[in-house]
Amino acid sequence: MARRIIVVGANAAGVEAASAARKKDRTAEITLLSQEKNAGYSRCGLPFVIGGQIPSFKDLTVYSPAYFQMLKLNLKPETKATAINTKEKAVTAVDKAGTTETLQYDSLVIATGADAFMPPIKGREKQGILSLRTLEDGEKLLEAVQNGAKSAVIMGAGLIGLETGVALIERGLKVTVVEMLPQILPQMLDADMAKMVQEHLQEKGMCVLTEKAVEEFLGDDKVTAIMAGGEKIEANLFLSAFGVRANTKLAVEAGIPLGESRGIKTNGRMETDVKDVYAVGDCAEAPNIITHKVACAQLGTIAVRQGKVAGTNAGGGDALFSGILASAVTRLFETEAGVTGLTEAAAQRAGIEVVTGAISSKTKADYYPNALPIKVKLVVEKESQRIIGAQIVGGEGVTQRINALSFAIQKGMTVRELAKADTAYAPPLNEAWEPMVLAAEMVLMKLR
Amino acid sequence: MARRIIVVGANAAGVEAASAARKKDRTAEITLLSQEKNAGYSRCGLPFVIGGQIPSFKDLTVYSPAYFQMLKLNLKPETKATAINTKEKAVTAVDKAGTTETLQYDSLVIATGADAFMPPIKGREKQGILSLRTLEDGEKLLEAVQNGAKSAVIMGAGLIGLETGVALIERGLKVTVVEMLPQILPQMLDADMAKMVQEHLQEKGMCVLTEKAVEEFLGDDKVTAIMAGGEKIEANLFLSAFGVRANTKLAVEAGIPLGESRGIKTNGRMETDVKDVYAVGDCAEAPNIITHKVACAQLGTIAVRQGKVAGTNAGGGDALFSGILASAVTRLFETEAGVTGLTEAAAQRAGIEVVTGAISSKTKADYYPNALPIKVKLVVEKESQRIIGAQIVGGEGVTQRINALSFAIQKGMTVRELAKADTAYAPPLNEAWEPMVLAAEMVLMKLR
Repeated sequence: MARRIIVVGANAAGVEAASAARKKDRTAEITLLSQEKNAGYSRCGLPFVIGGQIPSFKDLTVYSPAYFQMLKLNLKPETKATAINTKEKAVTAVDKAGTTETLQYDSLVIATGADAFMPPIKGREKQGILSLRTLEDGEKLLEAVQNGAKSAVIMGAGLIGLETGVALIERGLKVTVVEMLPQILPQMLDADMAKMVQEHLQEKGMCVLTEKAVEEFLGDDKVTAIMAGGEKIEANLFLSAFGVRANTKLAVEAGIPLGESRGIKTNGRMETDVKDVYAVGDCAEAPNIITHKVACAQLGTIAVRQGKVAGTNAGGGDALFSGILASAVTRLFETEAGVTGLTEAAAQRAGIEVVTGAISSKTKADYYPNALPIKVKLVVEKESQRIIGAQIVGGEGVTQRINALSFAIQKGMTVRELAKADTAYAPPLNEAWEPMVLAAEMVLMKLR
Repeated sequence: MARRIIVVGANAAGVEAASAARKKDRTAEITLLSQEKNAGYSRCGLPFVIGGQIPSFKDLTVYSPAYFQMLKLNLKPETKATAINTKEKAVTAVDKAGTTETLQYDSLVIATGADAFMPPIKGREKQGILSLRTLEDGEKLLEAVQNGAKSAVIMGAGLIGLETGVALIERGLKVTVVEMLPQILPQMLDADMAKMVQEHLQEKGMCVLTEKAVEEFLGDDKVTAIMAGGEKIEANLFLSAFGVRANTKLAVEAGIPLGESRGIKTNGRMETDVKDVYAVGDCAEAPNIITHKVACAQLGTIAVRQGKVAGTNAGGGDALFSGILASAVTRLFETEAGVTGLTEAAAQRAGIEVVTGAISSKTKADYYPNALPIKVKLVVEKESQRIIGAQIVGGEGVTQRINALSFAIQKGMTVRELAKADTAYAPPLNEAWEPMVLAAEMVLMKLR
């Protein structure tokens, strides 16, 4: 009998899992259940439809109906998985029409993602607080813009908050970002690097208020203002970007254990504590490569990698997920910011003694026109002199430098090795002394 | 008594050596002898003054007179070192006025570079054959352009030939490149990757003739045409870009041994077979990191790294050069091409059994506007599954991917590790599945 594989969730992690399962098993019956009307689209692309770079939400579809047909993946949209019975190996699902169905599985992949998180703030029940997690969220947000919103308050200065803030400024709105912590991008960057990004955002007209917690939503039925740090801020549009939380309800109700990070606990095969049940993407936890501490990385890159591993295993193969380094990057107006491995702050929280070094340089030969500034910061474990983290803020060339340092970290490169590393140069493309190499020199000066 | 350090040559390698020596020894007497009128300029920048991106040759000065003064480096321009006496530890030099001087050294750094190479072609003694090695060469070439040259023949499809060819097209000239071998960039790229670059150059109007050796220079006193592959090609401007040869005359006459590559033989300290005499840059040979075979890399990045090592040692320090990977990159019109480690052809020549894999992808999320094509080719040693080479051709983001793969090679990353590697992604900056990772998958498919 053909192997039956069910995947709950049909975005990055889910579709990747289904595709990998198909590659391993040509005859398996593979079913994807998606609560959403749209499946297989890129969440990470939502801010760029808001900003107008991408014409339509439809363009975000990465996996078309034809893709599902080609791979013989049975996609059930607008179908909510309501229960998992791990003993019977069955998933109960309700479709749009209210019809309940019970589906048997041999292997199950949980890719239920994460939901936008709303802290218990007074007035949170009022209408008009938007978020940007799903395509439908995006449509509502864009509608608000097109209906003439002139100003927006964004609550939270993480990636989604800032990328959407930039998009709204590009649409002509006055944007205020309110962040409880003393810096923007607190999960991603150290304060010194975040400051550079914040200055750029402010130059571009974004009002950034740090160390201001949202205390209350004001207005009658509909929110018209917030109180934050004792200050009343009025706007036409309110975006909740406090962060996301792993959507683990289905797993918890089925008795599938969570881990220390409150994500679904997994092993190296991305299998949960229940045999033949896998969890991947924003709802699943996995260990950090450096600290071995578990976390829900909640990054698209991690989601697809975990999906591929779980799908391969669900399809009868054998694959391991190597762990999370959490390399991430964003572009905000003309500045790119990226991170890989641990920030200085995260290393300190993990009890790792570090030495850091940073250098400001340029992205082309100094004499070449339009060279842009770039700053590289390295985080090095003092004892082993190994690089364990890097942050880069610059006008261009950030992403692939982050990848280069990600490879270096994954292979245990010491800062001494980086200082000697062979790099590529041409005047329109780089400096003869690559900024990453110069940053290594800065660390070495402190180690001598 | 203060240590006396003499550096022969004052461009990338020489100035880097002098600067590193100064860092180690605050009181040393450091003298640089430069045959050229200009010192401390970037040879790699010359094509971009020809192309007009950089306004003037003066802009290529990386080390100004103020720099030499600040570091108390005694620069003697237009002073030719004519002999080295390694027993007496002395260098004889003749200045512009014809005055001969003998200078004593405790440490000597030979950074005599390389010269443009002209094969024994009939008519090579005729006037009007230009080259592009020195700033003076650049001035002559630009003068020819400004004097109304309408067409150019470039002999040799290496980096200098093609970069200058692009520059001349940007100046409005009709450009024909003649290459003896069956492909362009033969030292840098495999034929399959070179073909992509060649097609781009041809689309942009460059006439590229491969497998055509230059047989004769035609014309009375002045060259007016060449014969190549039996074909007569007329032009107003003729550029010899056959390649460069290490300038080792001074060393050879002093009895300093050359190595297998005909560059000056060095050890890991960049010291020659003669104690206290170092050789660096385009005239010096050093081992390749992968094959351990010696070579003159003749790249700016290698020159500065070797200069730093030799200067540190000459100044009483202790430094080792890690060897050559020969990462290199160029931009030709809107295409970037890069290499690190061994090409497939070079690996075969070295007797290494390899598996290769290549993938064509995009530089941004597929749905993001203006995503550019990129192709990544990996060369993997079959037995160890380690990456030993990579080539990338694409519209952007080539340089730092080359650096990433350079780090991977230097740390012995296997193709299996690369296929699992954590990379950074954002729709405007990359794909969720990084092209380098996809290329690793392609190799794995062949290894299975």
